[in-house]
Amino acid sequence: MTADPLPPGSTIGILGGGQLGRMLAMAAARLGLRTHVYCPDPDSPAFDVAAARTVAAYTDETALTAFAAGCDAVTFEFENVPARTVEVLSARLPTRPGARSLAVCQDRLEEKRLCAALGIATADWLPVDDAEGARAAAATLARPAILKTRRLGYDGKGQACVDGPEAAEDAFAAIGGAVSVLEARVPFACEVSVIGVRAADGAFAAYDVTENEHEAGILRTSRVPARIGEETAAAARAIARRIADALGHVGVLGVEMFVLREGNCESLLVNEIAPRVHNTGHWTIEACPASQFEAHVRAVAGWPLPSTRRVADARMTNLIGADAEAWAELAAEPGAALHLYGKREARPGRKMGHVTRLGPTADPTRPLTVGEVDSA
Amino acid sequence: MTADPLPPGSTIGILGGGQLGRMLAMAAARLGLRTHVYCPDPDSPAFDVAAARTVAAYTDETALTAFAAGCDAVTFEFENVPARTVEVLSARLPTRPGARSLAVCQDRLEEKRLCAALGIATADWLPVDDAEGARAAAATLARPAILKTRRLGYDGKGQACVDGPEAAEDAFAAIGGAVSVLEARVPFACEVSVIGVRAADGAFAAYDVTENEHEAGILRTSRVPARIGEETAAAARAIARRIADALGHVGVLGVEMFVLREGNCESLLVNEIAPRVHNTGHWTIEACPASQFEAHVRAVAGWPLPSTRRVADARMTNLIGADAEAWAELAAEPGAALHLYGKREARPGRKMGHVTRLGPTADPTRPLTVGEVDSA
Repeated sequence: MTADPLPPGSTIGILGGGQLGRMLAMAAARLGLRTHVYCPDPDSPAFDVAAARTVAAYTDETALTAFAAGCDAVTFEFENVPARTVEVLSARLPTRPGARSLAVCQDRLEEKRLCAALGIATADWLPVDDAEGARAAAATLARPAILKTRRLGYDGKGQACVDGPEAAEDAFAAIGGAVSVLEARVPFACEVSVIGVRAADGAFAAYDVTENEHEAGILRTSRVPARIGEETAAAARAIARRIADALGHVGVLGVEMFVLREGNCESLLVNEIAPRVHNTGHWTIEACPASQFEAHVRAVAGWPLPSTRRVADARMTNLIGADAEAWAELAAEPGAALHLYGKREARPGRKMGHVTRLGPTADPTRPLTVGEVDSA
Repeated sequence: MTADPLPPGSTIGILGGGQLGRMLAMAAARLGLRTHVYCPDPDSPAFDVAAARTVAAYTDETALTAFAAGCDAVTFEFENVPARTVEVLSARLPTRPGARSLAVCQDRLEEKRLCAALGIATADWLPVDDAEGARAAAATLARPAILKTRRLGYDGKGQACVDGPEAAEDAFAAIGGAVSVLEARVPFACEVSVIGVRAADGAFAAYDVTENEHEAGILRTSRVPARIGEETAAAARAIARRIADALGHVGVLGVEMFVLREGNCESLLVNEIAPRVHNTGHWTIEACPASQFEAHVRAVAGWPLPSTRRVADARMTNLIGADAEAWAELAAEPGAALHLYGKREARPGRKMGHVTRLGPTADPTRPLTVGEVDSA
């Protein structure tokens, strides 16, 4: 897969037109690369910053073929790309990441199997194919557990709590009777993620481990540094690298993990793998010489990976639904970096933007307070 | 001129499609604002990141009217906008900056007169209308002097050295016999610039003073902090504010100045005023919470001005003509922030991109070396 880097002026195709595609397109433009965004929704936020646009279904092979003809490489802002779509594109031009990264990461069961094969710990899990299987799995796993669809879950969607076998069949119905995985709930001390980037030649770099808080299944804040030990952080980065290597991944990937703590001892369980730029890496735009978006574009274009060094503490807060109505106050907050995604409609649960606040680097263990800004 | 801020989703029109328009469009997009770029050149770099594009002459009133109808405010990436163009636009929607900023700053003589009226020092100068006037002016001013066209000069174009009255007529011919200004050359210790931003309500903020080096009339590097005294820096910022106030300016402006030094005593002479984002402010993208581009967009949209605080030392180097061929090496330099403008053809003297390197903030007097990177 190693090849000459794409020269400035080349066109990167991006499948998906949301905020991740939008920030990818801007990072590409900074490097003198053009982007062509492909998305079925004519109101896609990424269209506003792309040199070329295709509005078509992901399964429209005529449109895909024309799109491929106008691009020098293709990437994805989301993992739920139909296999046939990847096949059509990858027959015509480099697609980064490749089919294996997408196939594994769009199926929760495949993710678990990959971790198991690599000897990377996860919460206990069992596959669930039907209502009876849900009951049997719930009888086996410690309670409480959580039933998650294998495919198409995001932001807490496609999940249901299972407090024992008698509740399992209802939970299975609640998630639409989809093939799924039952996972034991773990008493984690905190959730963290690693944003790593892997080049086609196997080079790898990771940003500092991020500590994340979710509300109602949706990411609320990410902060760096994570309040975990240095050895734990190193172990987390090593896990991300092993996963990226095993996938032959090219580009950024985000690996979410639970941190368990007993006394002074911390351990990690992998929760989810996203073969793409990740919401928990948005702080890299302000706090690093090159953001996760630039890192991904560089990997896709075959350029050298950037420095992933962090130059400031940071806290990123998502603006969800009506949160973005506070844009005027946020714009008036000195030093708060406000990002709005240009979405026309603020539906509940919809990510409308985010704000990143930088803090001092001096003391990495010092907690940041919400009101603390502009003090780097 | 004070009005409600333009809400996210509004469209800012940008006249001019070069790298300044491109970076303005990206800054607007970050804030959830759409951009419509208007430029006669179909290959304009800013088109690649704009939501809407118009390819038409600046004097095409039909196109201007349609453009105005699709925008909520209009701004400019260059000052040489025909007066009639500004008139057509400003009759239809807010144009920021306004006609006065553009009229004064597109005419070197008007700039000198403004400074004189404000009691702001410049090099000695005399207006030149014809060859005879050039000779007379050269006989009056100290030699050597430099003849500069009143209009349309940039990057050292439209300038000729005048070493005494006998050379003046040739110099006048060399600049095409255009109405011009003869300026005494000054033995400056260094060149600096102030990037300031003024809001419609008169609020003003300035970034740290930048020290600039030119080669063959074209900006080569900008560095902050400038190696000048604190009082000189404060005086420079105050000059920029007085000029902005006198123009009723809205948006960013760049004021270039010469620093004269005699012993411990420094003084300032204003050289040039640019009523727009400025090449010597590109370092603000990496070294400040909000760049000059965001500052300008905020002023144009009626949003609060951002913090102009600097969080790192920086050195920006322009990539001119064939310099950009080194993109692969620059991309491999850890921590160097590479910007390429997406221009298809690398003509000599053409600005193709720039690279910003950050250094430590600890010691503001410490010189940065060219090879010093990634050590913030």
